[in-house]
Amino acid sequence: MLRDQICSRNELSFLMEAHDGLSAAIAERASFKGLWASGLSIACSLGYRDASEASWSQIVDAVERIVDSTRLPVLVDGDGGFGNFNNARLLARKLRQRGAAGVALEDSCFPKMNSFIGDRHPLADIDEFSGRLRAVKDTVAEDLVLVARIEALIAGHGMDEALVRASAYAAAGADAILIHSRRTAADEIVAFMRAWHNRLPVLIVPTKYYRTPVSVYRKAGISTVIWANHSMRAAIVAMRQVCNRIFAEENTAGIESNIATLDEIFEMFNYNELARAELRYQSPNPGQ
Amino acid sequence: MLRDQICSRNELSFLMEAHDGLSAAIAERASFKGLWASGLSIACSLGYRDASEASWSQIVDAVERIVDSTRLPVLVDGDGGFGNFNNARLLARKLRQRGAAGVALEDSCFPKMNSFIGDRHPLADIDEFSGRLRAVKDTVAEDLVLVARIEALIAGHGMDEALVRASAYAAAGADAILIHSRRTAADEIVAFMRAWHNRLPVLIVPTKYYRTPVSVYRKAGISTVIWANHSMRAAIVAMRQVCNRIFAEENTAGIESNIATLDEIFEMFNYNELARAELRYQSPNPGQ
Amino acid sequence: MLRDQICSRNELSFLMEAHDGLSAAIAERASFKGLWASGLSIACSLGYRDASEASWSQIVDAVERIVDSTRLPVLVDGDGGFGNFNNARLLARKLRQRGAAGVALEDSCFPKMNSFIGDRHPLADIDEFSGRLRAVKDTVAEDLVLVARIEALIAGHGMDEALVRASAYAAAGADAILIHSRRTAADEIVAFMRAWHNRLPVLIVPTKYYRTPVSVYRKAGISTVIWANHSMRAAIVAMRQVCNRIFAEENTAGIESNIATLDEIFEMFNYNELARAELRYQSPNPGQ
Amino acid sequence: MLRDQICSRNELSFLMEAHDGLSAAIAERASFKGLWASGLSIACSLGYRDASEASWSQIVDAVERIVDSTRLPVLVDGDGGFGNFNNARLLARKLRQRGAAGVALEDSCFPKMNSFIGDRHPLADIDEFSGRLRAVKDTVAEDLVLVARIEALIAGHGMDEALVRASAYAAAGADAILIHSRRTAADEIVAFMRAWHNRLPVLIVPTKYYRTPVSVYRKAGISTVIWANHSMRAAIVAMRQVCNRIFAEENTAGIESNIATLDEIFEMFNYNELARAELRYQSPNPGQ
Repeated sequence: MLRDQICSRNELSFLMEAHDGLSAAIAERASFKGLWASGLSIACSLGYRDASEASWSQIVDAVERIVDSTRLPVLVDGDGGFGNFNNARLLARKLRQRGAAGVALEDSCFPKMNSFIGDRHPLADIDEFSGRLRAVKDTVAEDLVLVARIEALIAGHGMDEALVRASAYAAAGADAILIHSRRTAADEIVAFMRAWHNRLPVLIVPTKYYRTPVSVYRKAGISTVIWANHSMRAAIVAMRQVCNRIFAEENTAGIESNIATLDEIFEMFNYNELARAELRYQSPNPGQ
Repeated sequence: MLRDQICSRNELSFLMEAHDGLSAAIAERASFKGLWASGLSIACSLGYRDASEASWSQIVDAVERIVDSTRLPVLVDGDGGFGNFNNARLLARKLRQRGAAGVALEDSCFPKMNSFIGDRHPLADIDEFSGRLRAVKDTVAEDLVLVARIEALIAGHGMDEALVRASAYAAAGADAILIHSRRTAADEIVAFMRAWHNRLPVLIVPTKYYRTPVSVYRKAGISTVIWANHSMRAAIVAMRQVCNRIFAEENTAGIESNIATLDEIFEMFNYNELARAELRYQSPNPGQ
Repeated sequence: MLRDQICSRNELSFLMEAHDGLSAAIAERASFKGLWASGLSIACSLGYRDASEASWSQIVDAVERIVDSTRLPVLVDGDGGFGNFNNARLLARKLRQRGAAGVALEDSCFPKMNSFIGDRHPLADIDEFSGRLRAVKDTVAEDLVLVARIEALIAGHGMDEALVRASAYAAAGADAILIHSRRTAADEIVAFMRAWHNRLPVLIVPTKYYRTPVSVYRKAGISTVIWANHSMRAAIVAMRQVCNRIFAEENTAGIESNIATLDEIFEMFNYNELARAELRYQSPNPGQ
Repeated sequence: MLRDQICSRNELSFLMEAHDGLSAAIAERASFKGLWASGLSIACSLGYRDASEASWSQIVDAVERIVDSTRLPVLVDGDGGFGNFNNARLLARKLRQRGAAGVALEDSCFPKMNSFIGDRHPLADIDEFSGRLRAVKDTVAEDLVLVARIEALIAGHGMDEALVRASAYAAAGADAILIHSRRTAADEIVAFMRAWHNRLPVLIVPTKYYRTPVSVYRKAGISTVIWANHSMRAAIVAMRQVCNRIFAEENTAGIESNIATLDEIFEMFNYNELARAELRYQSPNPGQ
């Protein structure tokens, strides 16, 4: 299902960020068809920095909560795999176990630093990173979609480097390429697409070049757009505003119309099912 | 510090809900002086229902992320202690270890159901629950503030029952009483205060009677007001709106002004400290 | 596979206790065909008492380590399900996710106390416990073997009670019955078998009546014998002896012949595979 | 207390390996005064290989179980700190939180491979590793004993390299040096001691040179001997023997005298305390 979305030649797919069970449930209700378990967002919700501070098993546990809270397929931001090929394939096995539908691995070194921080992060050696991809592919085969994320552009190493890497990662078994850019226009991405000839489906993360109309992506033949952190960023503003107002007003009356009701929460997490199940499983004579 | 806030006779304190590291950091920046690690909110963020679905150790891990993300004292919603006296004291030991400042235990049965769902939840036996309180008190003594939460009013068992319980829990060693009500006016709470004569400090949770002005609480001699779930409820609305708009518009340009920038996130979690530390610890000749 | 073992009419099966990845790997190498993830043993290895101190999610994590360390099917000691029907079905879902093959639920109350401690533990209400079984059955259906463990004999409530419960649990959907006894002879067990007429396969735990020859079980028509804690108990004696001798002798020379070599450990956990994988995934030109 | 043991000039200390709560409790009962939370042993008990497969947070959780099961100070094998200086100080903070008394960091790269496997593992750059030590020292100061473990000898890089590193790590703030060797005689260790002049206390791990009498260590001025994995290795042999015999004999009668009784287990984990506490906290009228 994630594979169908990402690999479709005819339709542009969208993945919405989730960082916990709540944000996953909300994205599903907004009709999204797939989720992106964002490393940055999960780290922030845990109070960690996006610099390999959260352990790989804490990420796996967070992904489990996301998966369990929705029926949507989840593509997991697996950073660089948390070490070498062996760590990467262990991560992939655990993500499969917890029900993820895919994993994106980036050609960064461990520990990583968020792609938007600093300049010219060193990239992983191509052969070494290809080994990580091959190890994951051999381990989880068709069970997980394997996305190879290329940091060459966002880290300032240029288009040629990006294309060389895309080819190598395709050869190593990646199912799709995620090409990342920090420019405020999509020119780099479009140039990449032109040169790449869609040898594998391409995913993008338009966090910085958000002004680009989606028609550009469709025309360029992009497969999937990831809205990578927007639920978390919306939540931050809302929590900040509500905290500030409650602190100032010593009262919530003024903000009640801006916040969800408890009943909405109970509906979202299906408390009714629990009430029905109590009738079913706690009554002495079922079926009579 | 939490003890000072809760036990002050002169000043009304406020605790703001947190359910993860992110919401904790935001509440601190909004100038709150203490946090409430809400069982409902933590459950929701994990995608669980507030019905003892999350395990006690998952709650402890969530509290750890909250504590590690702020310098504020954290009062933890410990439900009923997740079992009997032995479970309750084990929970308290673990919360102390992870750096919590206090724990609130409610006189409910295990598994619990959220107080706002259904009617006349059965209450724990007074002696049995008092034993839980005594066990916690003997275990963590002065290290954690012990708040006894009375469900008698919210569960519809009446004022006399509430007062009998408050006295018993004071005798069992509680440092403060949390009296819960689901009425839309504060009349029950005020009546309780009048009858209780402040034999222990009293905390309240005005989720339903939010229209009451804070002056009423001050006049009634209440110690602490808990804003128990408002950050999460604000986040829900914001995430829902942003998800809906991004889904409809296939673009984030329209909502960029409504969401936090990445730089704000990097500032909140002190990415600069990491950059400075890299200079300090990755330079070959420190101090030269 | 576990189902085949337990439900076979022709062959007596044996499950060996495991409490961590190491004990699981050892049992597999000793040719056992299935494992029992013992609640007592897991609790002891974690330093908890077998009284519902470990959280359900800690048990699930321990089971994951057991499952991941062997190819054998694992029947998990799920205590009473850690609460009501809802907790029980959540536990079952998580055990299925982590790869368990079955779960045994006992008709005890929460928190439980180890069956060999104290007398006349209260039993769960038959209808209430049957509801737990039905909830688990409806949730995991054929994916997990569901064993209903009857504490009536071991808790001193008598044979009639045991048989009434066995019938009720069969009606509730249990795939097999585990009948527990603390007598030092198998007479109770044999009497149960005679009265039960094998309406469902029966598992036993001959911890106390270990002198009984296995021919008695075969003749009685028992399906499966669980060696419930013997690896842990063997490990205790060995660790104690080695600790005592090393402490006294301030040297390990005297005990080296009594302990495994590092090479044996490296073989058991397949360190060779890692060396081979390094060649495969860290060499620059695979396949050339 | 751990500091006193390790830094004593007059007395040789011994640390016994522990890998879980059970092995910790046994070592304490054997009169050891301190524990070594072994990375190899913890990995094995979890079913992982000693190659940075277990996540840092899984190690921290295992250490918590060890610490909670004993009153002894625990020195934790922290591998190389699971990444760079930032990962190392995060690990140290978490170990302090869970109650560890010290951490040993080795100058290996991430992911690591067990020191006894393979030849000439690459060592960390001296400055880089010194930065890890300084970061940990600045973070946990006097709260944790900081041991710098030198892999130069065991990895085949020679005595001069070892001494240069020991000096650098002392300058970086290490409280003690752990010098590791895989030779079957203690000659390397003794030579190191002669050249080092006890500028910091020295810990050793005589896993391979176990025939050396302890008088040699005392004479050489060594501070602390770590028996690094012997409980686990004893447990392996015992579990293997018991599994093999039970499998062959289809009965435990023959091995009952070789295994601990349940009563011994109940005594070790203080089930009596629970019984007493039930009287204290579950009786309706305490103190009457």
